[in-house]
Amino acid sequence: MVSERINGLATVLGAVRADSGVTQPMLVERVGLGRSVVAQRVAELESAGLIEGAGLGPSSGGRAPRRLRVRAGRGVVLGVDVGAVELNVGIADLAGKVLASRRESVDVAAGPDVVLSRAEALADELRRDRAAIWAVGVGVPGPVEFRSGLPVVPPIMPGWDRYPIRQRLRTRFGAPVWVDNDVNLMALGELHAGPDPGGHMLYVRVGAGIGAAIVMDGRLYRGANGSAGDIGHVAIPEGGTIICRCGNIGCLEAVAGGAAISGAVRAADAGDRDAREFLHRASTLLGGTLATLISFYNPDRLVLGGSLARAREHVLDAIREVIHKRALPLATRDLRIEVSVLPEQVAGVSGAVHLALDEVFAPANLEIWLAAGSPDQVPQNVW
Amino acid sequence: MVSERINGLATVLGAVRADSGVTQPMLVERVGLGRSVVAQRVAELESAGLIEGAGLGPSSGGRAPRRLRVRAGRGVVLGVDVGAVELNVGIADLAGKVLASRRESVDVAAGPDVVLSRAEALADELRRDRAAIWAVGVGVPGPVEFRSGLPVVPPIMPGWDRYPIRQRLRTRFGAPVWVDNDVNLMALGELHAGPDPGGHMLYVRVGAGIGAAIVMDGRLYRGANGSAGDIGHVAIPEGGTIICRCGNIGCLEAVAGGAAISGAVRAADAGDRDAREFLHRASTLLGGTLATLISFYNPDRLVLGGSLARAREHVLDAIREVIHKRALPLATRDLRIEVSVLPEQVAGVSGAVHLALDEVFAPANLEIWLAAGSPDQVPQNVW
Repeated sequence: MVSERINGLATVLGAVRADSGVTQPMLVERVGLGRSVVAQRVAELESAGLIEGAGLGPSSGGRAPRRLRVRAGRGVVLGVDVGAVELNVGIADLAGKVLASRRESVDVAAGPDVVLSRAEALADELRRDRAAIWAVGVGVPGPVEFRSGLPVVPPIMPGWDRYPIRQRLRTRFGAPVWVDNDVNLMALGELHAGPDPGGHMLYVRVGAGIGAAIVMDGRLYRGANGSAGDIGHVAIPEGGTIICRCGNIGCLEAVAGGAAISGAVRAADAGDRDAREFLHRASTLLGGTLATLISFYNPDRLVLGGSLARAREHVLDAIREVIHKRALPLATRDLRIEVSVLPEQVAGVSGAVHLALDEVFAPANLEIWLAAGSPDQVPQNVW
Repeated sequence: MVSERINGLATVLGAVRADSGVTQPMLVERVGLGRSVVAQRVAELESAGLIEGAGLGPSSGGRAPRRLRVRAGRGVVLGVDVGAVELNVGIADLAGKVLASRRESVDVAAGPDVVLSRAEALADELRRDRAAIWAVGVGVPGPVEFRSGLPVVPPIMPGWDRYPIRQRLRTRFGAPVWVDNDVNLMALGELHAGPDPGGHMLYVRVGAGIGAAIVMDGRLYRGANGSAGDIGHVAIPEGGTIICRCGNIGCLEAVAGGAAISGAVRAADAGDRDAREFLHRASTLLGGTLATLISFYNPDRLVLGGSLARAREHVLDAIREVIHKRALPLATRDLRIEVSVLPEQVAGVSGAVHLALDEVFAPANLEIWLAAGSPDQVPQNVW
């Protein structure tokens, strides 16, 4: 059990991270702790070098309070986004700002050693002359058991089943490592790109593969084993007897996803009528499954990512129409249906960075490293 | 914003409610508050008459600590479960124990005035000579906007659309009222009947109608508008062109639910082979949708309620088979598939009672009435 003090530190730090420029009186209103406790926690975080002053905020009569922000330059975190055919690595400050990134074509099917060796080499380029790495976030294109960070029977990642990504990178970078599936991280990146990171969001990525991420009250919901959102292989009404690469018939991914999507998006943009019809049909089929998930989950926001989302005008109307026709009126009344604002690669790296920051600043982990000063000073076998 | 003190009181009270007989040292371990704060909050709750001692707990060397429990007899709450064709009303103590209940056939389609008048009459029978009513929980067989307590376009409840259930019963009983859909409340009742009320549970009720409830970390998840779990009218692969009473085609409820289920359950129990085949087919179709929801939500428990659940042996195997065939291996690896332990009527009233207790003891509401002494002493326009 984490102590009350550590919980307070994590809560205050979380509130400063969520709203850079927040003042102490605003913190008192938001975090559910008394004035003197907040003042103490702020002082502690400042002397630990985690937050700093940033000018003066609005006065409510007396002396204007200081604005507070994360001391972004105190350390860096790494974000690694392993895609099906490309690798994106970014280095970010403690405020989550990506300072530099590298992108390279790598086939995930080449196996963990090839792919992670490249990720390590790119990370080495990025970290040159910089502060010590505090944490690493990694996204992979397959199911991950979040607790252990192990990929579990990932369909398009031969050689990765239960590969110890966490242990390998922890040893290499001397920092704690968290691993999640790429769609969860894209959703996290998208969430932090928007003005309001709260609420219930359903993020759906449609490209060669189809996956979803569930955001609940502004936080990723991963389910009992970490597989929540894996909707690529659910059966759909129009699936018929189409055989999917997974061996089942009528999977969503076999019918509304696939490599053909990217090509069709480009062709539709160029005016190709057949491509437009193809996208319209894929959107309609996808919309049916989304209607089911929206009836079930009742989010306030549906965000479409992946290559299908780039075909904005050709797909949004069709998806909207099916959802409003099939989902419960109460579930769609206030629903916003949007396309992602970030390019996929950017969302993936940003999400990996935010995963690393969210975890390293979580109470249980904060407790582990705060006494040592920073995460890179903790003996490796502790994490 | 609720004060730190109220949050502490609600947290400690919640921990005592969750584990009757808990000791102060155990509370310190569980609630994330320091020893002296816990001692203060316990003393305050005791002097407010909300908790009391209940013998001595295990000693860890020194003096044995007192066990604590809710002072159950301090007040009562009402649970009202409005079903499609019957009404169940129960009165319970503050520990959630139903002290007495009444059951009556009433068609919900008779409208809110007829149904609620009967509910009020039954409640009057139950409350005679008892303590003041602290809160009322109400379940209805249709979608409810939880914040306002209003039914919204409920398909089988003519006359109930946006009917002010909350205002009516609040005036009648002089206590705050919360309204939710009946499936959510059955899930809540089921949750409290088990040994472990935590975890991620998917509760699915299959009878004339089909609905689901989502439990996340031991708490109901209602979605952005309160309609989460409404899966009766999602389209299913085998739905074909069957027209549903809602006007759409191929709805789950039209294919795998319906009034025929109850009859088939009885006939199957009596050995009727056709009825068994009917149930097997309904279970297989239902299993397909459940596989989708399990892939998406990754719960650790699936609980089947409703009349279909009474046909335990005829349906469980079929449902299990489809789920394991169609859902992701990681999502089903640790999944428990069970039938509900409570009869529906009991689950519904118990859930309504727990809804009332959960809400009246929630921080924001605790703050409203604690100064007054009890909820029934707060002026009605405050709630």
